[in-house]
This record gives sequence, C-alpha cells and structure tokens, in this order.
Amino acid sequence: MGDGHGFAESDQWFARAERVIPGGIYGHQSPALLTRGEYPSFMHSGDGCRLRDVDGNRYIDFICGYGPIVLGYNHPAVEKAVDQQRRLGDTMTLPSVRTVELAERLVGMTPGAEWAMFAKNGSDVCTWALAIARQATGRELVVMADHAYHGVHGWCNGITNGFPDSDRASVRAVKWNDSAQLETLLDQDGERIAAVILTPFRHEAFEDSVMPSGEYLEKARALCHRHGALLISDDVRTGFRLDMGGSMQKWGVTPDLLCYSKAIANGHALSALLGSEALRDAASKVFVTGTFYLQAVPIAASLATLTELGASGAIDHMHAMGLKLCEGLAERAGAAGFDVRLSGPPSIPYMRFTDDGTGFDRSRVFCGAASRLGVLFHPHHNWFLMAAHQEKDIDEALAVSEQAFASVKAAF
Amino acid sequence: MGDGHGFAESDQWFARAERVIPGGIYGHQSPALLTRGEYPSFMHSGDGCRLRDVDGNRYIDFICGYGPIVLGYNHPAVEKAVDQQRRLGDTMTLPSVRTVELAERLVGMTPGAEWAMFAKNGSDVCTWALAIARQATGRELVVMADHAYHGVHGWCNGITNGFPDSDRASVRAVKWNDSAQLETLLDQDGERIAAVILTPFRHEAFEDSVMPSGEYLEKARALCHRHGALLISDDVRTGFRLDMGGSMQKWGVTPDLLCYSKAIANGHALSALLGSEALRDAASKVFVTGTFYLQAVPIAASLATLTELGASGAIDHMHAMGLKLCEGLAERAGAAGFDVRLSGPPSIPYMRFTDDGTGFDRSRVFCGAASRLGVLFHPHHNWFLMAAHQEKDIDEALAVSEQAFASVKAAF
Repeated sequence: MGDGHGFAESDQWFARAERVIPGGIYGHQSPALLTRGEYPSFMHSGDGCRLRDVDGNRYIDFICGYGPIVLGYNHPAVEKAVDQQRRLGDTMTLPSVRTVELAERLVGMTPGAEWAMFAKNGSDVCTWALAIARQATGRELVVMADHAYHGVHGWCNGITNGFPDSDRASVRAVKWNDSAQLETLLDQDGERIAAVILTPFRHEAFEDSVMPSGEYLEKARALCHRHGALLISDDVRTGFRLDMGGSMQKWGVTPDLLCYSKAIANGHALSALLGSEALRDAASKVFVTGTFYLQAVPIAASLATLTELGASGAIDHMHAMGLKLCEGLAERAGAAGFDVRLSGPPSIPYMRFTDDGTGFDRSRVFCGAASRLGVLFHPHHNWFLMAAHQEKDIDEALAVSEQAFASVKAAF
Repeated sequence: MGDGHGFAESDQWFARAERVIPGGIYGHQSPALLTRGEYPSFMHSGDGCRLRDVDGNRYIDFICGYGPIVLGYNHPAVEKAVDQQRRLGDTMTLPSVRTVELAERLVGMTPGAEWAMFAKNGSDVCTWALAIARQATGRELVVMADHAYHGVHGWCNGITNGFPDSDRASVRAVKWNDSAQLETLLDQDGERIAAVILTPFRHEAFEDSVMPSGEYLEKARALCHRHGALLISDDVRTGFRLDMGGSMQKWGVTPDLLCYSKAIANGHALSALLGSEALRDAASKVFVTGTFYLQAVPIAASLATLTELGASGAIDHMHAMGLKLCEGLAERAGAAGFDVRLSGPPSIPYMRFTDDGTGFDRSRVFCGAASRLGVLFHPHHNWFLMAAHQEKDIDEALAVSEQAFASVKAAF
C-alpha cells in the first residue's frame, strides 16, 4: 500500500457482495472491467468532481458515473429542485405537471423535436424509438453500426448469452463511417428499412473513439430521407456534452428521433425520447410504459440540470477543461517516451497507448496507478468531463498522470 | 361541478401536455384508461393514503401509484433513509454498499433465493429472468399465461404495434389455471422449454382477478422440475402485499427466479431479480446493465421499506383493511340492488359490476363518481391497499361508495 490508496474495506464488502450477487458487482460497474486490485469497489460519497470510497480514499473522477454526472456530484441547484419536489410527491397515481414542463423545455431547445416522452433507461428509449419507426413506416428492418452499444435489450445486447437469435432477426449492421455501404444497403433493401440508428460519434468500449468522417452523418440523413427511413440519434452517452440541441447538431444533422438518458438529470434516473411532428401519431400508438417513467423527482432534477447547463455555459467549459486534460496528457506521455492516442471530443475523451494490444496492458497499469493516486480514469471505456472540473483539478490530475506514466515505464 | 371535484387546472395542463407529449399522458397513467371527465390528470402532492391534485382536490387513493406506494406517500422512515443516503451519494461511478445490504436482506427473507440483482423496471427483470433461464438450460422457448402482463419488452408487450413478430418467436402461451394444458405442452416440448413465467395470481386489466385454482402453482412447479425447466414468479405487481418471502409462498411454492419491482422501495425506482444457487453461474454470464441500476438512494429506500413492512405487520393490516373495504362494498352494492364481483386478494382487490359488459359502463360511472367525491378506485385495473389506510379511511371510502352506487342507479 506504499503506492497510494488501499482498499481493505472495499475488498471486505466485495467478498460479502460475491456471496449474494452473481459476480459481486455486475454490468458496466463490474470490477472485472477495471484494473484488478488497483481500484476501489464501492463508493461512499461524492461532491463536485470528487468521490470518496469506503476506505476514505479520495478521487478526482473522470468517469462521472459513466456519464450521468454532468454538473457535479451533489449539485446545489439540482438538489434544491429535488428537495422541493420531494416534499410534494414523486411516484404518484398520476403524473406531476413537471412532466409537461420538461417536455416543453426539451421541445423548445431541440431542433426538429415537437414532442417528448420519458422512461428510465437509455435502452428503453432506443428500443421505443425503433418501435415508433416501425409503426410509422410499416417496415420491419433497422440498421445499426456494427458492435455499437445501444443498451441491453435483445436486439442490441452485444453479449448474446441468454438472448435468442430471433431477437436480432430484424437488425442489419453496417460499418461505421462507411457511407458507401450504407447507401448500398438502403438501395437494395430501402423499402424494408424502418430506421437507421447511430450514435453521433463512435464510442465503443475497448476501441478508440471515432468521429464521423466528412459528411457521414449528413449522408446518412440524406439516404434516410431518400428511402423513407427514419434517422435515430442515440445520444444517450453523448447528450448535453456537445450541443444542447442534440449532439448531431454539431455536424448540422437533425434526426427524426433523439434518445437521451445519462446526463439529462445529473444522476437522477431518467431517459427521454424526442421526435418530429410526423411521428406523433405513431408514437401515440406504440404502448410503452413503466411504473416509474413519470415520477416527478427525476423530472424536476432534469429541469434544474438543463437550466444550469444552459446558464453556466457548461459545454464550453467542459470542452476547455477536456482540451487542457488531453493536451497535458499528450505532452506528459511524450516526455515519458510513450506514444498515446487521444480520441473523442475533449468533453468525452479517451486515451490509450498506441500498440498496446488487445490486453490494454499499459492502459491498465496507467489507470490503476492513477486510481491508487486519486484520479479515476478508465482503461478501456471513454472518459467524461463534468462542469465541476476546474483548472486546479485538471492540474492535479495531470500531476498524477506523470507518476502513472512513470509506473508504466517501470512495468514495461 | 355541483357533483364534487372540478378539474379546470388539470384540464389546462392536459391541453398543454397534448402539444408536447403524444397523447398528453401515455401508458398506464393515460386518462384514456379512466373515466373521461371524472378524474384529474395531474397530481400535486401526496401524504399517507391521501393525494391532492393540481386543482386542490383531495383523494383517498386506492390505486397507490399502480402498486409502488405500499406504506404510504411521503413515509417518514423511508424518506429519512433517503435523506441520509442523498447527503452521501446516489449515482456514483461505483455502487454503494447499500447494494450489498439489500441483496443480503432479500436473500435472508426469501425462501430459495441465494442471490439478488437490481434494475429499474419490472419489465427489465422479467426479461432478465428469461435470459438467465435460457443461458442456464441452453433452451430457447418460454411459456407464459395468455394475455398476462409482464411488461413492455417485445416478447410480452400485449399491444404489438411497432414490435416485430420475431420478438415473440420463442414464446408459447397457455391458459391460466389449466394444469392439463401446461402438462401437455411440457410433455411435448419440454426439452425446448427454458422457463414457465407466471404471476402468483392472474391480475389482467379489463378482467376479474383470478386466484390459482387448487394445486395449479404446485403442479406448475412439479412440471418444471420434471422437465428441467425453470419456474419464474413475476411478483412485480403483487410483491410485498401477500407474503414477505414472495407471493407464491402463500401457495407453498418456491420459484427458481423471482421478479420484484413496484412496492419494493415505496415509490422509489427499483426492481430486483432473485434466484437460486443453481442459477448463479448463468446469471453472471448474462450481460444486463443500466446506468441507474445500482444508484444508492432507491436501494436505501428499499432497505427502509422492507424494515418497516416487516416490523409493522403491514401485510396483515392491508389484508384486514382490504377485507373491510370489500365486505363494505359488497354490502352497499347489495343494498343498492347491484350484483358486484369482488376478486383478487383483499390487499390487491378489484370490484366490477356483474354483467357490466365489455364497456365497463357501470364501473366507469361508479369510479368516476367516487373520484368526484374524493376516492380513487379504478374502473378496469385492480386496486391496491397500503399500510397507511386506516379504519376511518375505509369508512370514509365506503360512505363515498354509497353515493357512487346511487349515481350508477341514477344512470342506468
């Protein structure tokens, strides 16, 4: 433990967890996806851009709950709105008027969107978008980029254990950034294709992030128009860190359906589906509902989050802080003799070691060392900035990165 | 408005809602499913068993948020636990130890369960249960009762608009309470059947509730054992109102997989999947995750809810209050010259007018009149009791029911 943080409490809790939860912790938070032995397993509390784990160790967090924390943990304006709504009611037999206010707000700020609906998970709204597209077009096929992550419903779950092949019967995959392939598929099968679902940029785990090349999104938009298919933007992971009108706006593209979740309520559980006027009728004919979809507190939290994001210029700030982080990392990597690749936009960056191989060995040592020293990066999932990151936090993280690069040097 | 509550504010908000949300309010909370013009559309606040709508009208609520409110709105012990956890953290980059505590608690109180996992929606965990069953058995087919409601995923959404036929390719439906049909199906196709998913009793909307007859559940349990299929209990709607060890325990049956949501955290968004030791490995191999699945606040709320339910004898109390309500309704119906059918267990009761036809015309007048007079019943969905219902609330509701029966008499 001379190398920084120790995890005795985390380890004890994890041993308890393994007895009553398969794998101890499952899904994207599984410790199996981090650097074994170098990360905590359980968090105690959060404030601003800082987390504290159950051993009392403190971290500057660049994982942000895997996206949702966009302003900062325990943000005063959001939590004040939550307090006010909680005193009234949350889950009630009928919704609160906050639902209407949030739909109005989203419609008002989002080009092309004339209505909104709410759910709990990103996966819920991506699936709901497909259903509306099928209902509107009377067609069955949907097109996605190969290996893209759109959630855990059977049609898109990348790990197919337990999901029958029939769940994927109507899905066709294309190569990201290959306009020609998309054009060929739509030319051939356009009459059967209800929708093309794309993320604004490619951000798969275990890969560099890839921005859309040239006119890729614009071309996809045009091809959908030409063939009567709908363009769905899965903005679940990227929303509210690139453009308040939806991330595809950065490339001048307006989708027919727009899926949000994660950052929409700064950590409160909510997802949203926005759509065009032409799809209103189809949306009203697809039955999708959930006990907690319209609970008032997360919706109140979202209203406050959107207000704060807009008023504070948070997206520009995250861009600037992310740029400072990325430039600082590239510089320190070079000084230590490493070739690293920074990919993705600065507010949703990712760094890996060039030629690190499929094991991500250097990344795992680097991120593990940073964790021990109080900075949470992820070895093979993109990172996130939040508005709470200030210059001094970036400076502190960069100082830690120097030590982490030294650890990689020592290990290889 | 001489007939009680008026809904001017609700109506204004609903007109705004219709402009930005398809249908205004969608899903199970859609006003289209209640008695048009006789119910509010938006709630303002709740406390105990009482709700207040945006016009200031007050109600004794027997819909309970369609299940989740099992202790009462704004319950002090639950909200105290929520306050404590909120000061620490909710959605964090890694889970809190509350996750482990809740899994331990559920395993400790549930016969046959050796592990637990958490999600947000009932539909999430029913689908997850099927995936684990398929992974464990290497088989693809699942059996459900015809028209049973297990959520809105493609395999079970009763309204198929927008969902391709292939989503239901692996599902076989049987008639509820027909052991012989289930036996025949398993004898024929047993080697291909991964699981049978059943609710503890039949509680479909637009129908009387139907309890399992004779040895139905026990027979289903035995047939699954014989054919190597798994029995899944969908306890999403029924959980924590019949038996704290899972509702099928009332009939002496222990399922292999148990799905909870709704009442598990008294209105905070959470669902849980519990399973047997034999399924632990399969559960760890199915990838299901969601950004908010392990957020700490709903899990802390669940711990407090389960403590309070157990310590207060809430299930017995809800049974007693439900019995008083049902007996009082039957008596008043008879006195008014109506033949009504009370179905379901007293804590999850449902009343309809015998020979009311498919339009539920008398039920709609009855429930609409009750709403105008300050009691929320539902014309064609089962009702719920909560621990906050006291004798005086039942007496008040029964007094209102007398006037509502008189309204039906006047209308027909």
